[in-house]
Amino acid sequence: MPKSIQCVPNFSEGRRESVIKAIVDAIDGASAVNVVDWSMDVDHNRSVVTFVGELDDVRNSMLAGAKAAVELIDINEHNGEHPRVGAIDVIPVVPIGETTMPEAVALSRSIGKDIADQLSVPVYFYERSALMRHRVNLADVRKGGYEALLTTGLKGNRKPDLGPFTLHPTAGAVVVGARGPLIAFNVNLSTDDLDAAKAIAAKIRKLRDSHKAMEGVKAIGVFLKSRNIAQVSTNITLPDRVSMHEVYAFVVNEAQAMGIEVLESELIGAVREDSLIESVRSAMKLHNLTETRLLDRWLPR
Amino acid sequence: MPKSIQCVPNFSEGRRESVIKAIVDAIDGASAVNVVDWSMDVDHNRSVVTFVGELDDVRNSMLAGAKAAVELIDINEHNGEHPRVGAIDVIPVVPIGETTMPEAVALSRSIGKDIADQLSVPVYFYERSALMRHRVNLADVRKGGYEALLTTGLKGNRKPDLGPFTLHPTAGAVVVGARGPLIAFNVNLSTDDLDAAKAIAAKIRKLRDSHKAMEGVKAIGVFLKSRNIAQVSTNITLPDRVSMHEVYAFVVNEAQAMGIEVLESELIGAVREDSLIESVRSAMKLHNLTETRLLDRWLPR
Repeated sequence: MPKSIQCVPNFSEGRRESVIKAIVDAIDGASAVNVVDWSMDVDHNRSVVTFVGELDDVRNSMLAGAKAAVELIDINEHNGEHPRVGAIDVIPVVPIGETTMPEAVALSRSIGKDIADQLSVPVYFYERSALMRHRVNLADVRKGGYEALLTTGLKGNRKPDLGPFTLHPTAGAVVVGARGPLIAFNVNLSTDDLDAAKAIAAKIRKLRDSHKAMEGVKAIGVFLKSRNIAQVSTNITLPDRVSMHEVYAFVVNEAQAMGIEVLESELIGAVREDSLIESVRSAMKLHNLTETRLLDRWLPR
Repeated sequence: MPKSIQCVPNFSEGRRESVIKAIVDAIDGASAVNVVDWSMDVDHNRSVVTFVGELDDVRNSMLAGAKAAVELIDINEHNGEHPRVGAIDVIPVVPIGETTMPEAVALSRSIGKDIADQLSVPVYFYERSALMRHRVNLADVRKGGYEALLTTGLKGNRKPDLGPFTLHPTAGAVVVGARGPLIAFNVNLSTDDLDAAKAIAAKIRKLRDSHKAMEGVKAIGVFLKSRNIAQVSTNITLPDRVSMHEVYAFVVNEAQAMGIEVLESELIGAVREDSLIESVRSAMKLHNLTETRLLDRWLPR
């Protein structure tokens, strides 16, 4: 059985659709991978592409996508709220099916090497691919963004894992690594009060850090200028422990206590069926729903 | 690509597990079908088995299951709240995948013929297999149950579609037919007040019949003696129009207005992934969730 992997590159461009389309086409055209989803965030000026395929195909397609990004995105001209280190900002790879985490880590190293050698973009390995403790967390690796790297230079604790040891003049640097699946899940509020969203996000983090609930949930409050609304933006990094519905229900509750309605929720990228099942079980107290009841699993493909 | 069909026979036995196990084993062992689920309802003294397979396999397995049911269940000794006409009460077949409704109807006729010829149980065709208008609706075909058939005899508008034209002495009669997918979905209330459940069910039917909402939703209030609680028991016959969550939320709302908590909801049998998606979209205003975001669909089997 062929081994599959999911790849979720984030690019520092969220306004020019032609640029992202070109990157997606490069990824799609380079091999037999399937592009599952791509979405652009105009407020943060960044995009996420989700694709799936066999290990070698993903490697080839990622290089093709990275090449297109390096050609089309100039990080010096990029402005957006989100901290980022380069044109291709971060490349997570996620093992799926029978693929193991070590295999995903090995793939991430190949992807990093391809980009460093062929595109001259310095590479930092993070998460399960990190070579040093202070490189595990993306926020730590990316701290201060491209601007900080320009200022400090790529030395000391900012020395890349793979050279060159200077920033690419227009593409900056890139972070690559294997991680477990996460759900990028946002809840949009019917208010332009950013502080409300920040307060709710802070409550989530507090529950998480005191180990009471929300295990592994990263949350921040952000303002969507294009829509003039506040959003609680989360990453559910342990989807087997906390469901989307749990996060949603918490935000609804907190918002309601502030007299604020929830507009909607949204997914960025892909989600596993197991996560849908968990959310349905949670939302409707449907305790006897298990994957065996799903007719689709019993059908021939 | 082989054509698959779902078969959901209901048997008039819900208390003796050994009987249902024997029927399930007969179904399972007769061919390559997969038994997806089976559940026993002790209060209504009936069981539902859900199995899936290719057309001929389902035909053979259904006959084997029917044979076991005829051998093991005596309808004259059966008591239960639910109207039923025989040991095997009703056999719905549901087209899935590439299978068409006409193919499902044709299969239902074969199943009916097998049972009539080989087990001497009279057969009524219903739903999409009905040969007459007054046989379309199961409630009409089954009206008064086995007892009514004993009284009136199998003549006039109670004449079977396939002979023999006398009831089987211990197995009664059987209803067979093709229909679209439905979701058997129940909501259990934290109360023993059956009238509350009946009132909520009546409201659902009223909305349905006035074409305001709940299109295609059948609902009744029932009492679960084994648990001393009331239940709103529904069949969502048009799952593409009304989601489980929509029904759940309505019941929660109505119950809360009566000061009653909802205990849980439950599924009988199988459900399609599309239905989960609809419920998640509804429960969390997750408008951008579509099947293409499901990673599982992109994995090799």
